[in-house]
Amino acid sequence: MKSLLIHQHAYDRIADPLEAFRREVDVVTMDLAGVFRDPRSGAAVATPQPHIGFGNHDVWSNPKARKFIAALVESPHLDWFQSSAAGTEFPALIEIGRNAKCYTTCHVQSEAMAEWAVWMALDFLRAGPERRAQQAAATWSRLDSREIAGSRWLIIGFGSIGAAIGRRVMALGGHVTGVRRSGGSSPDAAVIDSSVTPAALAAADVVVLCTPHTPETEGMANRAFFAGMKQDAALLNLGRGALVDEDDLLAALDAGRPSFAALDVARQEPLPKEHRFWSHPRIALTPHDSGQTKGTVIRTDALFLENLALFLAGKSLRHAAPRELFDLPEASSP
Amino acid sequence: MKSLLIHQHAYDRIADPLEAFRREVDVVTMDLAGVFRDPRSGAAVATPQPHIGFGNHDVWSNPKARKFIAALVESPHLDWFQSSAAGTEFPALIEIGRNAKCYTTCHVQSEAMAEWAVWMALDFLRAGPERRAQQAAATWSRLDSREIAGSRWLIIGFGSIGAAIGRRVMALGGHVTGVRRSGGSSPDAAVIDSSVTPAALAAADVVVLCTPHTPETEGMANRAFFAGMKQDAALLNLGRGALVDEDDLLAALDAGRPSFAALDVARQEPLPKEHRFWSHPRIALTPHDSGQTKGTVIRTDALFLENLALFLAGKSLRHAAPRELFDLPEASSP
Repeated sequence: MKSLLIHQHAYDRIADPLEAFRREVDVVTMDLAGVFRDPRSGAAVATPQPHIGFGNHDVWSNPKARKFIAALVESPHLDWFQSSAAGTEFPALIEIGRNAKCYTTCHVQSEAMAEWAVWMALDFLRAGPERRAQQAAATWSRLDSREIAGSRWLIIGFGSIGAAIGRRVMALGGHVTGVRRSGGSSPDAAVIDSSVTPAALAAADVVVLCTPHTPETEGMANRAFFAGMKQDAALLNLGRGALVDEDDLLAALDAGRPSFAALDVARQEPLPKEHRFWSHPRIALTPHDSGQTKGTVIRTDALFLENLALFLAGKSLRHAAPRELFDLPEASSP
Repeated sequence: MKSLLIHQHAYDRIADPLEAFRREVDVVTMDLAGVFRDPRSGAAVATPQPHIGFGNHDVWSNPKARKFIAALVESPHLDWFQSSAAGTEFPALIEIGRNAKCYTTCHVQSEAMAEWAVWMALDFLRAGPERRAQQAAATWSRLDSREIAGSRWLIIGFGSIGAAIGRRVMALGGHVTGVRRSGGSSPDAAVIDSSVTPAALAAADVVVLCTPHTPETEGMANRAFFAGMKQDAALLNLGRGALVDEDDLLAALDAGRPSFAALDVARQEPLPKEHRFWSHPRIALTPHDSGQTKGTVIRTDALFLENLALFLAGKSLRHAAPRELFDLPEASSP
């Protein structure tokens, strides 16, 4: 018998499919108040020692998340942990990863993040800020808009997020060039390059950053990069804040090239109150939650259930993370 | 030899393909100042008497539009007029239609209007207004978003605009029910109904009005209609303002059902300064320009060239309007 630790909200959604594993899995839930229980009997559980943990959005947004994390980190036999995150670089995840025999990641946020990119691009192409200013002034004055159909996109970082964006842009009639180190081809982009070419940068109406932060990509979107963009183009960043030189971006926007930036990430998060990004008229900010949708939660549940069946059958799990990831000497930002 | 009257801006875009018809067509342009010219020689033309007219966005947005219209209305031999509009109910178009042997309409705005619908739906599902308020207050606070993927759309009026919307929503993973009088099926909707059923209305996350204004559809979106919608749903109107009972909409939004309305049209256009729509926090307004994109202008040029080749070959033109349309005793709004 294996013991599973899961948030009560997640349990409430997937109690029915979990019944299929009743003979193999004992469930312990944690509720909003941080109380552990057997959800079938309602009895409180003092010290869960889970074999299996499911750390999802409900956990991370619970003020008592630390109790859930501690139960995983202190379990003497954590066989497998399913994370809802694609990345593993957060301290709590590293702690859990060090104690788990198997750790699996989750990439279903890509679909939500791709809709964020389409939303931000449309708000730019449709002149959203000007239109809202006109409405506030009760001004009925027609404006020309641009379309995704026929627009050119350069997507830097063409993994699951980049491909999910590319798929949507192509379905809407846009042209997509993807950039990834390994090159190759993809049904989700017309062209895959292995580097950001000046010609591709100069042709793009929308440039999307969704590449990991590495020494090579650190500050890649800098003064020279912006100078190579089209004047009426937009920059979208849903990768990492450190991909962008923030002073250079502000200077570039003030000079009109690019003419708009939509940012879901920043070098320092939460973004400090005094940061100039907040009030810049050509910047749209979201608080690193482009992947945070109800759809993401439901797709994460589905991945967990799929991996649970594989786990109980003794098979390989989807998206198992290499163990070396958790041997880093030090964790990055909290 | 046929004489073609065309706006100078349109001529500048399509001068090359027009060269193919040089032996059959003399071109007269009108510029921004309202001056008629032979664009090849530059010579002014006092009184154009066109056989062919191309009335597009460049014409309607020119302060001298009336001169262009008069040349068409007064021509003793207007064989064919290509309009950039889908509708024919505007006085100037009726005047031209009465003098033209053949009148063709244009439906390429549908693509631009469909992107407007996707834009407005995403801004609603992503909580755009709340997010912009948070940015203005320098507040970094994550919010749950919804997705088009998995959302349910009820599209009332399933002609070229409705189908263009349905195509995009389905490509993005949404579920589409279309409503059109004639029923039938479509690759752009999962279900086509011939009436708005209470069940379809109650299930929809996004309800789109893009049906014509007729005695049957006058004020169809009224108190009872809104009471049948989901609480967290949005209404999108890019049909005609008269489809909506505006007082009922305001009361419904204040009561929270629907929770958002995006309106490209209103009963009185331009919308009067004192109208409550301007300042309502749950209404996004655009000034009846959802179809006004650069893409629309280019697709309209392409339709004109296609019809020009058919016209010169003596064939039937695309989107010829029935002559009865221009026999109405009186024109509607200007």
